[in-house]
Amino acid sequence: MKKTFEITATDPESSARTGIIHTEHGSIQTPAFAPVASQGTVKALSHSMVQNLKAQLILVNAYHLYLRPGIEVIEKMGGLHSFVSWPGPILSDSGGFQIYSLTPLVKVKDDGVEFSSHLDGTRIFLTPENVIDIQMALGTDIMMLLDYFCPFPSSKKDTKQAAKITTEWAKRSKSHLQKKRFTRQLWGICQGGIHWEIRKQSIQELMAIDFDGYALGGLGIGESKTQFLDMVEQSDSILPKEKPRYLMGIGYMKDILQAVEKGIDFFDCVLPTRNARNGTLFTHTGRLVIKNKKYERDERPIDEECTCYTCKNFSRAYLRHLYERQEISSSILNTLHNLHFYLDIFRKIRHAIQSNSFRQLKYSILNKIEEGEQV
Amino acid sequence: MKKTFEITATDPESSARTGIIHTEHGSIQTPAFAPVASQGTVKALSHSMVQNLKAQLILVNAYHLYLRPGIEVIEKMGGLHSFVSWPGPILSDSGGFQIYSLTPLVKVKDDGVEFSSHLDGTRIFLTPENVIDIQMALGTDIMMLLDYFCPFPSSKKDTKQAAKITTEWAKRSKSHLQKKRFTRQLWGICQGGIHWEIRKQSIQELMAIDFDGYALGGLGIGESKTQFLDMVEQSDSILPKEKPRYLMGIGYMKDILQAVEKGIDFFDCVLPTRNARNGTLFTHTGRLVIKNKKYERDERPIDEECTCYTCKNFSRAYLRHLYERQEISSSILNTLHNLHFYLDIFRKIRHAIQSNSFRQLKYSILNKIEEGEQV
Repeated sequence: MKKTFEITATDPESSARTGIIHTEHGSIQTPAFAPVASQGTVKALSHSMVQNLKAQLILVNAYHLYLRPGIEVIEKMGGLHSFVSWPGPILSDSGGFQIYSLTPLVKVKDDGVEFSSHLDGTRIFLTPENVIDIQMALGTDIMMLLDYFCPFPSSKKDTKQAAKITTEWAKRSKSHLQKKRFTRQLWGICQGGIHWEIRKQSIQELMAIDFDGYALGGLGIGESKTQFLDMVEQSDSILPKEKPRYLMGIGYMKDILQAVEKGIDFFDCVLPTRNARNGTLFTHTGRLVIKNKKYERDERPIDEECTCYTCKNFSRAYLRHLYERQEISSSILNTLHNLHFYLDIFRKIRHAIQSNSFRQLKYSILNKIEEGEQV
Repeated sequence: MKKTFEITATDPESSARTGIIHTEHGSIQTPAFAPVASQGTVKALSHSMVQNLKAQLILVNAYHLYLRPGIEVIEKMGGLHSFVSWPGPILSDSGGFQIYSLTPLVKVKDDGVEFSSHLDGTRIFLTPENVIDIQMALGTDIMMLLDYFCPFPSSKKDTKQAAKITTEWAKRSKSHLQKKRFTRQLWGICQGGIHWEIRKQSIQELMAIDFDGYALGGLGIGESKTQFLDMVEQSDSILPKEKPRYLMGIGYMKDILQAVEKGIDFFDCVLPTRNARNGTLFTHTGRLVIKNKKYERDERPIDEECTCYTCKNFSRAYLRHLYERQEISSSILNTLHNLHFYLDIFRKIRHAIQSNSFRQLKYSILNKIEEGEQV
């Protein structure tokens, strides 16, 4: 079978590395950032805009698409790539996280999870097997298994139980997929909260099953930065070097840079796109809240160093006007900028690792960006 | 002074003609359709998308921009072209129509109109002179004078009075502009409702004052199609051939084609953009309401004859999904299509007039499009 991941450079000073994930719809240079397109569209952009930003893939949510328009519709349309007309790689999240965070009356049973649809209350029963079937019907390039998510804080006992069920489901997912002879990738999701012994065991059990990639789940949900970084660092020490590692849902630039340093290859987060719609813009010198009165007559672009369409053409004053008028073009232009900002930093990260200057880049970015500070 | 309008072809079978309106920011081929960008942005599109659609100009609303962000801000930013970063021609509507339709407590006095802001109730007093000053500060290429709008139906007496005041204000607008030695264009707005004698007098009085173009106001607001067409046809018989004629706010394709035939050169309407956001799409064979269940698995583009980005890339099924999910990209893709549809028909109209086949085009379009009918 074709190799799905290769490492192209390693940072001599840290665990940072660059690599290539190969998929049937193209390759993904890592470290990579996946723009979130839960419903099959990056919010507030057309695909052509996402392509112009040189996004390498999009991330969809299997749970949302399963509910609407439904798997049958997407199959009838020739699969998800064809239905949404996205030619590049697509990763589908299983929706495990959404089940636990969006839906009422969740009951985890041995063979799966039962819950009420967040839309109309219909009882739904998802199993490791049917979550694989759903993603196979979507035909996405990278599938995520159904995990049992544990909120923060959770007791050791609950965390252990969640990790145990996740392992059990992981085994069933893998064996179900093997029966189907489907060649797309399946990545595992490790649980364990902030309890290293539990997370360690979760990782080891998943490694024993053998997945194409390993995701760290259940982080960035309320634990301290120290706890978070400790988990990432310890995971790095036991995860197989030759497989891609995915830190789910983490989007603050500081966390991303530190995680790359600890060997993480893959990220996704709604932060750049959601914040854009709310008028919070990322710049090389911190955040800018476009509705602020002080930008009313500000002729400068959002970020003077930025080369995106928005920054090359429009002033803060105009963008503030569009935001205040609740114009849709405000969401478009702001999202273009924020996503460009993220993807551009990832390009710089990859370039820096390949030229042995990652730590230098990291400090130069972090010295200027202080999360929460305003321009 | 440079000629602001030239006729390039006339239809031997009707009053239809092609021409060029020259402005300081480029020329406009007529018959032309102006996409509405009241707040300085075409709703749901970026300027680059509007430019890719080859829109020749945008139409802004002086009243809205006067309220927010305010003229001082726009002047400080170097005028409207610079503030909104639109390099081509801009026409500013005076906002007369919005004053009468949006604002409470309108009092028309001899020297102007007093009303409450539709935003916060502040009393505002606009005069023919300050409406010119506002538009001069915006620096738009084509300014519209402040008219006195008369709703439908209105008595002859009220209509006559409105037309009389409009003429009075038109004189003052022109003389105010002349004092300023400002070289941009000022177009007059004729009133008179459906009373030909009154409208005729209004046109003649405005012609005596001499404007760069003549708009027919107060139509398309409830009168019958026969009354509407009668007014356009009779106006054609007395309006000067050498000046552009603008039929304000008319957007149904059937009305447009009939008006072009009666010598109208210029149109604007929110119909393509507003309908797009509401999921009503225009096609060569009628209207399509994208939310309809029957499109759930429809692999065809909106319009199989259409060459727009949306039709070249996306199925009705996907567009229905985006609409149902209330994704912003639904508004983007639908607006791209509807606006392309309009601008494309205007290109065909100009081409047909120049090749002596306008009537043929008109019938071929009308035979297929039956307003209100679904695909």
